[in-house]
Amino acid sequence: MRHTLSVMVENKPGILTRVAGLFSRRGYNIESLAVGETENPAFSRMTIVVDGDDRVIEQLTKQLHKLINVHKIQDITHEQTVKRELILFKVNSDTNTRSEIMQIVEIFRARIVDLSRNSMIVEATGDQSKLDAIETALRPYGLRELARTGLIAMVRGSK
Amino acid sequence: MRHTLSVMVENKPGILTRVAGLFSRRGYNIESLAVGETENPAFSRMTIVVDGDDRVIEQLTKQLHKLINVHKIQDITHEQTVKRELILFKVNSDTNTRSEIMQIVEIFRARIVDLSRNSMIVEATGDQSKLDAIETALRPYGLRELARTGLIAMVRGSK
Repeated sequence: MRHTLSVMVENKPGILTRVAGLFSRRGYNIESLAVGETENPAFSRMTIVVDGDDRVIEQLTKQLHKLINVHKIQDITHEQTVKRELILFKVNSDTNTRSEIMQIVEIFRARIVDLSRNSMIVEATGDQSKLDAIETALRPYGLRELARTGLIAMVRGSK
Repeated sequence: MRHTLSVMVENKPGILTRVAGLFSRRGYNIESLAVGETENPAFSRMTIVVDGDDRVIEQLTKQLHKLINVHKIQDITHEQTVKRELILFKVNSDTNTRSEIMQIVEIFRARIVDLSRNSMIVEATGDQSKLDAIETALRPYGLRELARTGLIAMVRGSK
């Protein structure tokens, strides 16, 4: 099962290496990783998506807790969350296909952020399944390049 | 100077640890990191923002090239790029402040993606300076939580 871990870490050199090393030494491949600033400038949040059963993830979480500079870990897999990822597509387009691509962009509430004579860059946000759907819709035109940020998540409501 | 490196890596366990380790051993703090899928399922792209002068970054790049499973490195600092990051804010809101916050959201072409009795979650995308501006606008209402993905970038045009 896919687990989403939200890990608050202190902004100290080497913390990323220690966290990534803990997963790779145990043979776990991190499927998605986003590292970014938080409401507190002294901390970063790592959002880690990793595949494994509940018991194994619980053990990994315990070992993460023991790492220096790791402040707080939440397994938010079973919580009600807003999950979002950002994607940029560079897609082939010419005067014939441009309006079709613009329709797809509108349907998915995406945005065109660059245009050249024979390509455009499309920006979209959403959860995994929405981004997969827009990728499937754009792929037939020819995807030259695709960049994804990795997932971030926030628990809904005001707890 | 802030450099943006786009590093294509093979999806093999341990690659993240090796790349992160190379930076931390040399005392370089990665300011922003995004790891995500690409147009080729065998590869991931790491977008790394790191501070250093041109000569030092060139050396780091050479050493990155020597790492196993690192496929391609581009320093896109001086290129014309679309730079985007995704941010989620959980901001205090009540019936008095809701419409003010909605105005800010509209000005920055952001989106409200969750609402509870006394908070909302706002999603925004943009470059660093736009996201800093929206954060400054929302902070007075009380930021409960903030999550950022790290930056991704794509060279403009159809090269």
